[in-house]
Amino acid sequence: MKMFSVVSLSEAIDIILKSFPKMADVVEEIPILNSLDRTCADDIISKEDVPLFNRSTVDGYAVVSNDTFGASEAFPAILTSIGEIGMGEVSNKEILNNETIYVPTGGQIPKGSDSMVMIEYTDKIAAGEILVFKASAPGENITLKGEDVKMGDIVIPKDTKIRPQEIGIMASLGIENVLVKRKPKAGIISTGDEIVPINNPYMPGKVRDINSYTNSALLTNIGFEVSQYGIIGDDKNKLVKTINLALDECDAVFISGGSSVGTKDITICVLEEIEHDSILFHGIAIKPGKPTICANIKGKPVIGLPGHPAAALMINILISNVVKRSLLGLNQDFQTFLLCEMTENYPSNNGREELIPVKVEQVAGIFKATPVHGKSGLISILSHAWGYILLSRDKEGLQKNEVVSVFKF
Amino acid sequence: MKMFSVVSLSEAIDIILKSFPKMADVVEEIPILNSLDRTCADDIISKEDVPLFNRSTVDGYAVVSNDTFGASEAFPAILTSIGEIGMGEVSNKEILNNETIYVPTGGQIPKGSDSMVMIEYTDKIAAGEILVFKASAPGENITLKGEDVKMGDIVIPKDTKIRPQEIGIMASLGIENVLVKRKPKAGIISTGDEIVPINNPYMPGKVRDINSYTNSALLTNIGFEVSQYGIIGDDKNKLVKTINLALDECDAVFISGGSSVGTKDITICVLEEIEHDSILFHGIAIKPGKPTICANIKGKPVIGLPGHPAAALMINILISNVVKRSLLGLNQDFQTFLLCEMTENYPSNNGREELIPVKVEQVAGIFKATPVHGKSGLISILSHAWGYILLSRDKEGLQKNEVVSVFKF
Repeated sequence: MKMFSVVSLSEAIDIILKSFPKMADVVEEIPILNSLDRTCADDIISKEDVPLFNRSTVDGYAVVSNDTFGASEAFPAILTSIGEIGMGEVSNKEILNNETIYVPTGGQIPKGSDSMVMIEYTDKIAAGEILVFKASAPGENITLKGEDVKMGDIVIPKDTKIRPQEIGIMASLGIENVLVKRKPKAGIISTGDEIVPINNPYMPGKVRDINSYTNSALLTNIGFEVSQYGIIGDDKNKLVKTINLALDECDAVFISGGSSVGTKDITICVLEEIEHDSILFHGIAIKPGKPTICANIKGKPVIGLPGHPAAALMINILISNVVKRSLLGLNQDFQTFLLCEMTENYPSNNGREELIPVKVEQVAGIFKATPVHGKSGLISILSHAWGYILLSRDKEGLQKNEVVSVFKF
Repeated sequence: MKMFSVVSLSEAIDIILKSFPKMADVVEEIPILNSLDRTCADDIISKEDVPLFNRSTVDGYAVVSNDTFGASEAFPAILTSIGEIGMGEVSNKEILNNETIYVPTGGQIPKGSDSMVMIEYTDKIAAGEILVFKASAPGENITLKGEDVKMGDIVIPKDTKIRPQEIGIMASLGIENVLVKRKPKAGIISTGDEIVPINNPYMPGKVRDINSYTNSALLTNIGFEVSQYGIIGDDKNKLVKTINLALDECDAVFISGGSSVGTKDITICVLEEIEHDSILFHGIAIKPGKPTICANIKGKPVIGLPGHPAAALMINILISNVVKRSLLGLNQDFQTFLLCEMTENYPSNNGREELIPVKVEQVAGIFKATPVHGKSGLISILSHAWGYILLSRDKEGLQKNEVVSVFKF
């Protein structure tokens, strides 16, 4: 059999990001409220200024700033009040030198005024007489027309993931519907003669199809539309047929292998048979998850995951987001973490990277990480774990009380 | 008017967590694949052992361990092969001393065997003769029946948020449907005479209803079912009626105030009128977001948010998760962050906490944070920001190159 090189996790990520074309731009127009976590298919350009008018950021008096220069507690400026502008009022009022108008926070600044004095620095001494105790600079306490967004600005670039704040900016511009890319489609296949549907009764020797469920949940969660192609035994022809069908209908295919060497061979042979030289890597030098495969078939990513459920899920948490970024052409996002102190030593010197699932507790304000021990096939490990530590290849284990970065599952 | 005390952000969070009863346990049974991010309404107890049988974690030979003691390259143990167990095969085969059976990874260990020797440490010398070059300890390379989960174990405690790994553990136990709590319902109200629906044309003096959209998106995103109660002008009676309706239909109500002092007064007066002594706090000592209100009416949280869209969204990102935890009785989750170097000085000495929105870029492997400057009413700030820094009250600004924790929006 042909040998393929084993890559590091960061090499695997680079290969996935570089090897596939972006998904064809099939777009749909949807209401902005339904667009959360979708991807903008076009630059969103503002057709107007925000705010639409010079707006006060305080409750107070609109003034001509140079009327207030030199004003102090001892020598206040004396201005003539010529009325007020109500909240939401569209006003044509104008002030001249030595005049003022009351404006609430958010209210429109009258013509002629270039500055707002907060009400705290004023006093009303008689009908129509306002004392100002403080100099107010030009532009002070005013948001200028177009200061937030200028007409013609690209407010949301194409390929941006839409968050609540992007929905806010579209609402502020009166945009009710937005063009988004369709969700990428993921096909899921479980392989192995030992895998049975989850509603099967107790049968020694058999293992329920956990991977179809964890992979579906994970991929749905990060924004894929998921189709399940069921459980395929170690039957080469059936696997060829199923992978071809999934590739026709989906943008990416995720196959979790049975855990036997036999099964792994079948997956890789089948992928090579479907398209010669399609294998980009076979093996990531990481524990757990070494048997991970990536192939490029018909320009689409086919990911072969380990059969052990916990290993398959841990690897796919790292890989699936990269596949999604590649398909949608999204910019890199940064993965956040928690700084924790190790509660015990963790020995390791296996010369490859390692994903260590950990529990996290907060004790007297300090986060404490404790490895969840167990073999990589144990799904209960991941249920007990809050997150994981990525141990680099050249690091020989972790010491008790050492500070580590813990990434959330 | 009655005065209410201003609280710190952590005091505000404590008050919300302590003041409200959990939502009544209305539950629904749903397929596990649809249960992602929902809350378990009951302990999930395993009705069987996982794995269901002693299982091999390697490809190799099942042995009686003490037959291999003392085995080495020079003096291998010689065993008689009496067959193999296929992947997924349910076997009653048994081995006696000096016998062995081939078992693939994931396969069932035959009776009589207590250890697996990896195939790499064996050699087949003739039909039925296997050399073993290494001693194998009892239990080596075997996952014991029940090692992952024991019958009767609580595998997922009540009130747990369901992640892909919880779906995996349910699948592994053959559980197809799960009892979950219903989603909490949030009612959203926008107030202010200046607020108009987003499809309104250009009108100086008016501001589009951004907050209904950002709050809907945010609350939907974290797992609320959202109902919008529209825009209420500064009309006390209408506001009383709308809040009462929202409280009847929802578990929590979020009101974003118009930004004028007048409007803020109306919201707080109306809340006091609906239920006397209902205000838990009026004001969080944080910039932006000082005018935030929390009331307890009919045992339900009513949150009054600032009118400025960016301030309202920033505060609600912090508050809405706490309200959700309180309603569902969820355990605390830990907020992850990114360690960044400041690219510039950020002066601040205003004696209260401050939320600083920042852009994040990665330069030569180092994350760099740059404050996004602008007034709190500017929604474009949040669209440009990747996350925020929470500056404590006693910290007098930040220095260029200082390392800070940046939380993702």
